[in-house]
Amino acid sequence: METPDHATETPADPAEATGIAAQNWATAAADPQYRAAVVDLLGALAYGELAAFERLAEDAKLAPTLGDKAELAKMAAAEFHHFEQLSDRLTAVEEDPTAAMEPFAKALDDFHRQTAPSDWLEGLVKAYVGDSIASDFYREVAARLDTDTRALVLSVLDDTGHGNFAVEKVRAAIEADPRVGGRLALWARRLMGEALSQAQRVVADRDALSTMLVGGVADGFDLAEVGRMFSRITEAHTKRMAALGLAA
Amino acid sequence: METPDHATETPADPAEATGIAAQNWATAAADPQYRAAVVDLLGALAYGELAAFERLAEDAKLAPTLGDKAELAKMAAAEFHHFEQLSDRLTAVEEDPTAAMEPFAKALDDFHRQTAPSDWLEGLVKAYVGDSIASDFYREVAARLDTDTRALVLSVLDDTGHGNFAVEKVRAAIEADPRVGGRLALWARRLMGEALSQAQRVVADRDALSTMLVGGVADGFDLAEVGRMFSRITEAHTKRMAALGLAA
Repeated sequence: METPDHATETPADPAEATGIAAQNWATAAADPQYRAAVVDLLGALAYGELAAFERLAEDAKLAPTLGDKAELAKMAAAEFHHFEQLSDRLTAVEEDPTAAMEPFAKALDDFHRQTAPSDWLEGLVKAYVGDSIASDFYREVAARLDTDTRALVLSVLDDTGHGNFAVEKVRAAIEADPRVGGRLALWARRLMGEALSQAQRVVADRDALSTMLVGGVADGFDLAEVGRMFSRITEAHTKRMAALGLAA
Repeated sequence: METPDHATETPADPAEATGIAAQNWATAAADPQYRAAVVDLLGALAYGELAAFERLAEDAKLAPTLGDKAELAKMAAAEFHHFEQLSDRLTAVEEDPTAAMEPFAKALDDFHRQTAPSDWLEGLVKAYVGDSIASDFYREVAARLDTDTRALVLSVLDDTGHGNFAVEKVRAAIEADPRVGGRLALWARRLMGEALSQAQRVVADRDALSTMLVGGVADGFDLAEVGRMFSRITEAHTKRMAALGLAA
């Protein structure tokens, strides 16, 4: 089975990119506000990967079979290696990875605490929904980044194989017992609500990052564009829920 | 700081090895009982690595700092890759990794359930003690294996860096508050007791494996030798506890 597409309408084609999207890191980072925004972005992404590692390792304990457990552990290890790449890049640009991650730890920890899955299927839906939305968001932002940072961000968003695995298992569970679909649809809506509320908190807190998102530093973003980005992400979410057999 | 040595007296030098220790897998595995014993050994080791992955990922949640958390996550990922190597080898010799692991899952799960650490330091001591004893045991057994299996077993026992990390953290905690040492020494003794009782259960259950250990299949092992092996492992444990600042 195929995983439904990500929000594919990337708003800028890097080949025709101008401004920051046409520059490499060394040139772009001369602007201290751009630099601060990228450090924020990499810090948020790194902590997200570390939290994803923990969450998948935790979900592995709920796995109904040894094979499922090994599959989840494999994805957790892949997330950890993404974390390593991001952490190494922060070190390479002389930033302390821990300091860069710290501002985002609370929002992500709160999100995970408030959405602790109560069983294996809720864990799968959460991993699938959460990873997909995060990955759509970073893909959108990536198009606005300098060439070096963009390449890094896109490489850590490489599919860890979680999508197909979750879609197959969840669809099979709904086929076996259709009532499961209603419960999981509610769960997915709760996840989306919590994710948005934590994201708002982060954006309100981090000046450099949010200025970049609304067009103050990197070129091409304005508020209307941010609105369109959120509707692309929401549409992609709706399609994914349908593919899972859930009403979004 | 150096990690204290493993039980170094490996009882057979592979260069002078005779019998199975001088054969490769293809030759040695022609004996169906030897083959069954090795499948057991690889299955036990694979499940041990998967359980170690889970345990370290769990301990990462107790980490007092983001840096410690990342360090534990790194070790967990390393354990997972060891699991992958063992699982790939089982597949390569046409054995189902899940079926090979299954007989050992209960003993290892019981061990981990009965020795769930109540804090970060207990987790570190457990990981250190557990990994070291397991690694001493497999190193001893490795010397009796065919050349291909031996190379694999030794490669997955490569230090994941956990030793030095645990020793440093635990010594610092005892220096800061000497009473911690008494509590952790009791904890280490409990771990050793639980580990031995689960190991006995496994040996009683798995004929091919225990026959190999007491000399029925692979050459060189007899009951007296098994006794000496256990005293080498116990001595190494005592030395490691002293290095941690704990009375064994």
